[in-house]
Amino acid sequence: MAGSSFGNIFKITTWGESHGRGIGVVVDGCPAGIELNEEDIQVYLDRRKPGQSKFTTKRAESDKVEILSGIFEGKTTGTPISMVIWNEDQHSKDYGDIATYYRPGHADYTFDAKYGFRDFRGGGRSSGRETAARVAAGAIAIKALKSLGITVTAYTESIADIKIDTTNADISLRDTNALYMPDADAYKRADEYVTKLMSDCDSAGGVVACVVEGMPAGVGEPVFDKLDANLGKALFSIGAVKAVEIGAGTNAALMPGSVDNDSFKIDNGKVTLTSNNGGGILGGISDGTDIFLRATFKATPSIAKQQRTINRDGEEIDITIKGRHDPLIVPRAVVVVEAMTAVTIFDMLLMNMSSRIDRIKDFYR
Amino acid sequence: MAGSSFGNIFKITTWGESHGRGIGVVVDGCPAGIELNEEDIQVYLDRRKPGQSKFTTKRAESDKVEILSGIFEGKTTGTPISMVIWNEDQHSKDYGDIATYYRPGHADYTFDAKYGFRDFRGGGRSSGRETAARVAAGAIAIKALKSLGITVTAYTESIADIKIDTTNADISLRDTNALYMPDADAYKRADEYVTKLMSDCDSAGGVVACVVEGMPAGVGEPVFDKLDANLGKALFSIGAVKAVEIGAGTNAALMPGSVDNDSFKIDNGKVTLTSNNGGGILGGISDGTDIFLRATFKATPSIAKQQRTINRDGEEIDITIKGRHDPLIVPRAVVVVEAMTAVTIFDMLLMNMSSRIDRIKDFYR
Amino acid sequence: MAGSSFGNIFKITTWGESHGRGIGVVVDGCPAGIELNEEDIQVYLDRRKPGQSKFTTKRAESDKVEILSGIFEGKTTGTPISMVIWNEDQHSKDYGDIATYYRPGHADYTFDAKYGFRDFRGGGRSSGRETAARVAAGAIAIKALKSLGITVTAYTESIADIKIDTTNADISLRDTNALYMPDADAYKRADEYVTKLMSDCDSAGGVVACVVEGMPAGVGEPVFDKLDANLGKALFSIGAVKAVEIGAGTNAALMPGSVDNDSFKIDNGKVTLTSNNGGGILGGISDGTDIFLRATFKATPSIAKQQRTINRDGEEIDITIKGRHDPLIVPRAVVVVEAMTAVTIFDMLLMNMSSRIDRIKDFYR
Amino acid sequence: MAGSSFGNIFKITTWGESHGRGIGVVVDGCPAGIELNEEDIQVYLDRRKPGQSKFTTKRAESDKVEILSGIFEGKTTGTPISMVIWNEDQHSKDYGDIATYYRPGHADYTFDAKYGFRDFRGGGRSSGRETAARVAAGAIAIKALKSLGITVTAYTESIADIKIDTTNADISLRDTNALYMPDADAYKRADEYVTKLMSDCDSAGGVVACVVEGMPAGVGEPVFDKLDANLGKALFSIGAVKAVEIGAGTNAALMPGSVDNDSFKIDNGKVTLTSNNGGGILGGISDGTDIFLRATFKATPSIAKQQRTINRDGEEIDITIKGRHDPLIVPRAVVVVEAMTAVTIFDMLLMNMSSRIDRIKDFYR
Repeated sequence: MAGSSFGNIFKITTWGESHGRGIGVVVDGCPAGIELNEEDIQVYLDRRKPGQSKFTTKRAESDKVEILSGIFEGKTTGTPISMVIWNEDQHSKDYGDIATYYRPGHADYTFDAKYGFRDFRGGGRSSGRETAARVAAGAIAIKALKSLGITVTAYTESIADIKIDTTNADISLRDTNALYMPDADAYKRADEYVTKLMSDCDSAGGVVACVVEGMPAGVGEPVFDKLDANLGKALFSIGAVKAVEIGAGTNAALMPGSVDNDSFKIDNGKVTLTSNNGGGILGGISDGTDIFLRATFKATPSIAKQQRTINRDGEEIDITIKGRHDPLIVPRAVVVVEAMTAVTIFDMLLMNMSSRIDRIKDFYR
Repeated sequence: MAGSSFGNIFKITTWGESHGRGIGVVVDGCPAGIELNEEDIQVYLDRRKPGQSKFTTKRAESDKVEILSGIFEGKTTGTPISMVIWNEDQHSKDYGDIATYYRPGHADYTFDAKYGFRDFRGGGRSSGRETAARVAAGAIAIKALKSLGITVTAYTESIADIKIDTTNADISLRDTNALYMPDADAYKRADEYVTKLMSDCDSAGGVVACVVEGMPAGVGEPVFDKLDANLGKALFSIGAVKAVEIGAGTNAALMPGSVDNDSFKIDNGKVTLTSNNGGGILGGISDGTDIFLRATFKATPSIAKQQRTINRDGEEIDITIKGRHDPLIVPRAVVVVEAMTAVTIFDMLLMNMSSRIDRIKDFYR
Repeated sequence: MAGSSFGNIFKITTWGESHGRGIGVVVDGCPAGIELNEEDIQVYLDRRKPGQSKFTTKRAESDKVEILSGIFEGKTTGTPISMVIWNEDQHSKDYGDIATYYRPGHADYTFDAKYGFRDFRGGGRSSGRETAARVAAGAIAIKALKSLGITVTAYTESIADIKIDTTNADISLRDTNALYMPDADAYKRADEYVTKLMSDCDSAGGVVACVVEGMPAGVGEPVFDKLDANLGKALFSIGAVKAVEIGAGTNAALMPGSVDNDSFKIDNGKVTLTSNNGGGILGGISDGTDIFLRATFKATPSIAKQQRTINRDGEEIDITIKGRHDPLIVPRAVVVVEAMTAVTIFDMLLMNMSSRIDRIKDFYR
Repeated sequence: MAGSSFGNIFKITTWGESHGRGIGVVVDGCPAGIELNEEDIQVYLDRRKPGQSKFTTKRAESDKVEILSGIFEGKTTGTPISMVIWNEDQHSKDYGDIATYYRPGHADYTFDAKYGFRDFRGGGRSSGRETAARVAAGAIAIKALKSLGITVTAYTESIADIKIDTTNADISLRDTNALYMPDADAYKRADEYVTKLMSDCDSAGGVVACVVEGMPAGVGEPVFDKLDANLGKALFSIGAVKAVEIGAGTNAALMPGSVDNDSFKIDNGKVTLTSNNGGGILGGISDGTDIFLRATFKATPSIAKQQRTINRDGEEIDITIKGRHDPLIVPRAVVVVEAMTAVTIFDMLLMNMSSRIDRIKDFYR
């Protein structure tokens, strides 16, 4: 069944495999009149592309985006924006072995179980490379949101048990280090931890946090299309995510209602809250305060350390995965979390426009 | 925008408010030939209905389901199954005050922000009562799954920081106490904790875990309709859920890849895994082992303790919420988690049927 | 698969069988703030209900609608509006025979082929009675459209080859006769024709035309969700429709481009056209002139005349269908065409609201 | 809003403009295991490409398709198949004038009304060139259907009032002339008629018929996703279609029920019908006989003859459209009708697979 589309009004459809011709996305339902060029997209892809630091695979991909449709005289026309990122570095010989066995923590076995066979070159469709297409689409959503006064910012909150000092974190320092951790001290410890794991041919997990500022109240649909439900789906659709939290997240289980409840107050004539355990969402609808999310990423499953697994003939074997792999997914996933959050938020802002008959009358007056 | 439907092939649409005429659901896309009567549904509603123990509201609702369509001679016909649960206990006078102010932790303010006004009787559409309709629909999915050898079982894993002994838990003991905790010792401590909170006019949060046994491998769609992405949306669409975890969940951040990776092995000629950090899902597709999920519920926001908030005129006020409220959401949410999990799993089993042309040829031979 | 929902933002889901408990519809995505009561719905149902004239079945149904949710203090709340029309006259004994054979022109055989069995009481889900639910939903769309200055009017254009004088027709005369033909002379001839057929135990077909006045330009989405594509689906989803035409319809095949092309002109400072071969739609998008549609209905397949068919055992037999049937579908279908047209038009008006970023900025300012 | 996707399980998303970089389509939800290469697609594109005869534009496009994803070792993998047809002949200077005025019968005015501006190069997104992407997608559906024993064949039934002798037509002769009319005599008259119109700088309309052979009974969903409803939408989504007919079509209005009703009979032990007024569909579900459809195409609106229209400043002007245009749409539309029919039929075959619980049990056994 079709599973490569996301969104209701602002709808993205991705395609492509790790070692095929390229990776692409069609963004349909983008409003007309947004100034857009390839450079607007490229700055986000550059944050995701490999080879930026010792923490990312050495695979050499320039990840240059080409816009193939939907723009005329520098503006979106309202019709589909098709974008492609051609694959350049296709060392498929590196991946020859994985045709015959099932890598632990990967989708090799499940793709075979589902489809009878799989494109085994570098993970094929299940490769993290697919997220480049999401980032390209997300860049458009981010630009559209900015024009509405809304910003989306993700960052690394923790690597393993090394967590930034959240109460004092200055998110503007995020880009000062290769792990996108806005805390110099935490970064230093994380660097040491990951460097040690790398020398052990092992990998690390971590948490990406995301904040949405400037949200109007009233966005999100009751019941099944709650804003948090759609954000939850958006983040869980990113490979390697094992948990998603909104506001206080798992910590909400620990607090009595009298502590967890955020009190309403008036601040400079505006409705706001005394705390943010709700994460900016009440009953699935934005309350006008900052939206706060968290996604837990497992460690990169591709490790050079010897592992036990089975082959396609059902024999247990020991394997050592070759190739060039990130020792952790988190730093490159930061912009992917931003992208998926932005796509979801923008889509739901558009969905919300039909909530009141009087506003519809105004629109068509 | 329409937000009251869930699912692609097996699709449910709920309607109704806490203090309106009733709560209902239309289940469309249910396969023909399933033996079904009202009693099949009622047993699940009885697990959710109020008034079962000291931990649940005293609101007197028998929550009797009526099937209005889609059944003929005791079997589903393949056409929509419409079900209704009439509201009986409509003490709307209890709710008169909440028309004028915004309860902390509730959707009062956000509904007003979205729609300009709201049905303020007991939370209206944002009431937890809406989940009765989900349970009715889920009961059908659970019955269909059983006929395929698949069971879905949720239980209370923790209340605040009181957690069951997961390594030794015997889930079959779940129904032996009012909190649905399969651990007598944990139950005893949780009972004491909640009883104390109740006397303080306060409320508690907790975690519901859910296991799906008997899953075939290969179910779930790549990229955006990953099995975990749709399960994530399903659980986040339940009011009061602040975190969803798959497999190791937030703990996955802490493990190196060599620990987190579940190794494949052959057990009695069948492919299986040495551990279950993945939660039965790899690359968004079931791997044939048990699916394991967790949802964190915040404490009931309706508490009798005095709270600070604002009214519709933007004035800060102190309030004390009257009415009959559950001191914790968790026990009644257990069956809701089962229902939403079952609806999602069954829908995705149906979606998976078109994955291979050879199976389609077999079907139409 | 789920097939009982229609629409994207304004979405309707119908349920129920001809001789079950009742017929209903859930309208989700209806904007908040529309004044609505049961009488607003009932006036449209009364135009569809049986027993109005000699041309409609004598089945005694009052077709009283009940609104079960989604209204508070006389206004739509933005949440699902659930409506039910209870079945009263369930002479299921009249329909006993049809369990065993397949009526020509009916869905008996195809339901059996699809589902393995069927609810044979009066056509079950495939009965024309299902359209009552559409009319109830359509009444809401019609009311919403009126508040935007848009009216939808259907009428009988022809019965068999007896056609109204379209160039001189005064549509306001539609309700002056039982066939809803706005032409006294055509009505007289049609009455004679149908009366003769009735005495022969036979039935008649005809054409329903529909005009939408007051449409703004710019509504409809390019490519697959063209306004005419969605209207085409809407009308073909009504049982017994064998052709749908937009503007000049089948006649468009006969005209050279120089004749078929409607020329743009300025009339009182407003853009309009010199003719309406396009039916108010260009490239799938409304051009601001009247939308004109036509649906051809086949004759009622249930006739008392003897017919040849087969039974469930595959034996050829002669049958005579008993029961109370309309000698023609057309008069009762007029309001169904209005309803489906209104639902589609209103949905696409809502879909169009996100077409330009500057209007979105205005909305969220 | 997103309008560039079609289908539920087998879902296609098209992109591209007449004079942009290219035209493309992403086919998502295609089952794995179908042998597919570019030549399988190209043969269908070659039937649609320009420059084949005096009846088609001289625009020089080779319309070569490239498959960018979704194929591995010669077979579909179950993941999205992305295809592109690069634009070669971009004489955009030919189209300079149309930026300033609104061509009659075209979408220039409506795109401006919707989006505030438009890509005016050759019709942009509203160009007939968009259908190349549909043909590429349709070629896959046609190949999949063939493997199930189902064939889809469209042909020209009439040009203006020149109609083939339908009772004696031998559809296998379709490709013997440039108008795809399977009747040598009708072709000769149509050739003369169109040649005369061309010398008058005018254009012609006509009708494309389509037959689907080998359909199993039981395909199509009740109520809104009737097989004919989805086919109706599919055909109306093709530009220039003004009418769609199923079976007897508009002629159904003229027949009494006793004539229109197709009688069931047994032929060689198989259920079939004595006539085909229903067009192979009863109650929206296939009855196992041939499906028969018809689409009426208006004349090409781009004509060199002088026409009256308005410009963007609201002034009435006379125009003469330059450029290279087909004198009639019909011959190149034949393969587009096949493509859209095939996409719809294949999608609904997949949707039908979940109609019975016993077949689902068989599938997962």
